[in-house]
Amino acid sequence: MKALAIDLGGSHVTCAIVEEDKIVASESLHVEKAASLKDLLPNISETFIKLSNHTSIPFKECAGVAFGFCGLVDVRQGTVISTNAKYADAPTLDLESWATESFSLPLKLENDARLALLGEHYAGAARGFDDIVMMTFGTGIGGVAMIEGKLLYGKHYQAGCLGGHFPIKLNGRRCSCGNIGCVEAEASTSSLPDIASSWPNFQESSLSREGKIDFAKLIAAVREEDKIAREILDHCLLVWATGAIALVHAYDPELIVLGGGVMQSADLIVPFISSYVNEHAWTPWGKVEVRAAELGTNASLLGAVPVLKR
Amino acid sequence: MKALAIDLGGSHVTCAIVEEDKIVASESLHVEKAASLKDLLPNISETFIKLSNHTSIPFKECAGVAFGFCGLVDVRQGTVISTNAKYADAPTLDLESWATESFSLPLKLENDARLALLGEHYAGAARGFDDIVMMTFGTGIGGVAMIEGKLLYGKHYQAGCLGGHFPIKLNGRRCSCGNIGCVEAEASTSSLPDIASSWPNFQESSLSREGKIDFAKLIAAVREEDKIAREILDHCLLVWATGAIALVHAYDPELIVLGGGVMQSADLIVPFISSYVNEHAWTPWGKVEVRAAELGTNASLLGAVPVLKR
Repeated sequence: MKALAIDLGGSHVTCAIVEEDKIVASESLHVEKAASLKDLLPNISETFIKLSNHTSIPFKECAGVAFGFCGLVDVRQGTVISTNAKYADAPTLDLESWATESFSLPLKLENDARLALLGEHYAGAARGFDDIVMMTFGTGIGGVAMIEGKLLYGKHYQAGCLGGHFPIKLNGRRCSCGNIGCVEAEASTSSLPDIASSWPNFQESSLSREGKIDFAKLIAAVREEDKIAREILDHCLLVWATGAIALVHAYDPELIVLGGGVMQSADLIVPFISSYVNEHAWTPWGKVEVRAAELGTNASLLGAVPVLKR
Repeated sequence: MKALAIDLGGSHVTCAIVEEDKIVASESLHVEKAASLKDLLPNISETFIKLSNHTSIPFKECAGVAFGFCGLVDVRQGTVISTNAKYADAPTLDLESWATESFSLPLKLENDARLALLGEHYAGAARGFDDIVMMTFGTGIGGVAMIEGKLLYGKHYQAGCLGGHFPIKLNGRRCSCGNIGCVEAEASTSSLPDIASSWPNFQESSLSREGKIDFAKLIAAVREEDKIAREILDHCLLVWATGAIALVHAYDPELIVLGGGVMQSADLIVPFISSYVNEHAWTPWGKVEVRAAELGTNASLLGAVPVLKR
């Protein structure tokens, strides 16, 4: 099966023609902050015309359009529910009609994190498993759950995808979601600068002479044996591992897939989370496997074929 | 529909004949610690013969036997998976054959907390809702999830029923389940004596002159305006409300049902959890309703008709 795949993030949109588990051709466009999705749609159509010409794959050979959106999505209605301040016009758009008019193809809209899990399940780290949770460490922390081969949705499409917003620290930091002590508030790119600058003796760390701190800088300092950086990373690892246990107790998976840019340092992360989870999670049936994601930013594009087959 | 209903707890077994949402007759037996379920089955059969004679309802008028068991249950195989040290012989027993031989009736085995939610859904506080989580405050803390009218199970029947074991306190108390900082470890009848005795200035509280502390004693002291008791209850309320938010973020419910003996003081509990959840949970679709359970210890017995209809 061939398909058109769209991955719409906060700062980019990637268009790809995929065939089964291969990306035949793709192109990414930079997107301005506070962009309108309506204004972006003609650019997406043009990009696909270019990709179609370039690959000599006509639209009619494709089974449909898989659209991964960075927000809450109503998959039954094919509409965007909540955009978290990005693409504020998205809930008003009829994307299915746009796909029919532009490509004469059906469209499946899905949350981008759920599509990424479908991609890893179809062609990546989660092949062969049907009971999976995925944590993605980005600006925030994404979480998605698949139970017995089916993505979990819930009444308002929130079930399974708020793993970054499980509270794991009583009386902890206020999270952007309104809750207190969420995994995302206690250890994510968005909260790391605050966490670091308020760390005891932070001025002793080489990080105190850096600009805004991210995980790449933190991990570089850890590899240089910076003691404070090590303490901060250990704190983040404990937060993530505790969040992973919450996901295991919530969704009963056999596999945890860890994704996001920080997994370039999987050697510092996967062994710790794996041993912590298997020491502390209540799983009388056996051990939970913990793996790094394999597909990186291609994961949600490669979710196109499985989402269109459903 | 009429049915035989069994609720097997750690210290008792209740047998009932139910008709739709009514308990026609019931009898409870005390069970010794470390009892064998095999040795108990003849007592259960005899009790049902007595109830059948007393009510003039023959077994053949009943649709089946609903068996609520206090442990993890494989509902597809009709077998007990894990007993948590109670009724250690349960996983070896063929309960379906026992029901056929004793009553010529089919048997449905289910976890007791899941049956209680089915009961509240069918005839109690959760009528009219299909997206529900239930927290039951007993010795430990139970949690069950229903999504779009279906109980959540997961691969190993653990999904949805470990709400008491979501970690909500980083570096908190060790839980009996092996994890750290679980809701159950931070505020339940089993952990309350330890929490109280290590509370700052506990010796100033009237509770320090009580024997082993439970929630009845704690709440009595709160009603007498004992300052330390109030602090401890406030801590427990915060733990429960935080656990409730974790359940909301995990399962996307419209209703939280709170059960267990402590709910005799629902006036001290429901308003706090309701306002905390609706202040802090991320629910762009609207507000989560929080209610006390209505059926008390009858809830799992009244789950008999809905579980047999499935």
